[in-house]
Amino acid sequence: MRKVLIIGIGAGDPEHVTVQAVNAMNAVDVFFVLDKGDTTADLTEARRAICERFATRRPFRTVVIADPPRDRAAADYAGAVRDWRDERARLIEEALLAELGEDGVGGILAWGDPALYDGTIRILDTIAARGAVPVTYEVIPGITSVQALTARHRIMLNRVAGPVHITTGRRLAAGWPEGCDDVVVMLDADLACRAYRDEDVDIYWGAYLGTPDELLIAGRLGKVIDEIEAVRRDARARKGWIMDTYLLRRV
Amino acid sequence: MRKVLIIGIGAGDPEHVTVQAVNAMNAVDVFFVLDKGDTTADLTEARRAICERFATRRPFRTVVIADPPRDRAAADYAGAVRDWRDERARLIEEALLAELGEDGVGGILAWGDPALYDGTIRILDTIAARGAVPVTYEVIPGITSVQALTARHRIMLNRVAGPVHITTGRRLAAGWPEGCDDVVVMLDADLACRAYRDEDVDIYWGAYLGTPDELLIAGRLGKVIDEIEAVRRDARARKGWIMDTYLLRRV
Repeated sequence: MRKVLIIGIGAGDPEHVTVQAVNAMNAVDVFFVLDKGDTTADLTEARRAICERFATRRPFRTVVIADPPRDRAAADYAGAVRDWRDERARLIEEALLAELGEDGVGGILAWGDPALYDGTIRILDTIAARGAVPVTYEVIPGITSVQALTARHRIMLNRVAGPVHITTGRRLAAGWPEGCDDVVVMLDADLACRAYRDEDVDIYWGAYLGTPDELLIAGRLGKVIDEIEAVRRDARARKGWIMDTYLLRRV
Repeated sequence: MRKVLIIGIGAGDPEHVTVQAVNAMNAVDVFFVLDKGDTTADLTEARRAICERFATRRPFRTVVIADPPRDRAAADYAGAVRDWRDERARLIEEALLAELGEDGVGGILAWGDPALYDGTIRILDTIAARGAVPVTYEVIPGITSVQALTARHRIMLNRVAGPVHITTGRRLAAGWPEGCDDVVVMLDADLACRAYRDEDVDIYWGAYLGTPDELLIAGRLGKVIDEIEAVRRDARARKGWIMDTYLLRRV
């Protein structure tokens, strides 16, 4: 049966890659890459560099699949993500059938950890459930941008015996999570944390974590939010894209 | 100035170790190990094995520090943790002064990620703030048991664009976190999730994740909780200790 290894490769620093991920990469016959177009050419290149550096023990092929467009303006956000995922699943299913031998091992590299705000596990789950292409899969965990953020700021994610809430910018805009003073925000294009600038909240922000372009800013939210906004806008204009995350801590 | 590298080494599988952690281990002159006594002799041995396997490029020494006892029955849980941490900080400060040269590099290996339910960052923060021994430190992230759990169950941590709450058994016993259907529970000696056995909740449980003794059970909470309890009790009796974690998912 075809097997696909879903390999977490860390937040950006090639040295985030685990020994398990290196071994997995070296078991792969064909890497499948979803090409998201020009805006993330840097990321595609970084992923290629990781393959070249670590998958050195045997020959491999790379198959690039054009990523289907996603309706980011849809009112039904979860529904739009599902439609997009179904289309991605169909394209990957086709590619597995056409490009991978019946006993072949495919590889899909995922930034961060495949279990956190990534679509690859659900795609393989969908393909396996559909059954048109018999396929099994394994997941190899990777360092997330949240972990790169806390490591670079040298802070704890939680306070002593305290809880941590991980959420999205969209949800933070709807309100601070109940019963939790330590909140990680991901996928936030609009710095929804501005709503809390007058409260006693510290922010630990990072962008392009683990890469040479890494940006770090920390401080009382009200004092640093304008700086973060300006730095973020400039970096995004310069590079054409940004990936950032932050921790909010009520003090 | 003395430097300490706080190195996350993953959840138990030596192959969770990152390339960054391997490089960090190979920069260390002296590893400082807090010995927690017989109950975690397996863990001390596993940590030693990781050092031996990966820190191969230069000689290093290991200094073992007897871990101070901790009052686990204290009513003031956070206070007891703070007292214990202060005593640990004092012992490590002494050891840094006695065992590490002024330009030396110390290493402390942390299971999982140093930012999640681990005390090492706070200890170094305390020592650095006190200033009696001039010291700087860096943090190297590692794969957590949460990531090992989701990888082995091949599940997502979050649902599409949904939040995730990470908490402790003690807090879960006080009530299900507000506004979040996906809850990771750590440090739970009593399976506080039993309180939700009659609700529509799935559990993904794992113990000794990443090790040859790994145990995995998943299913509707009400259906599998008795099995988890029995398996957990037996394993703990057999090995003398258990480390486990689980994800609860309202369905």
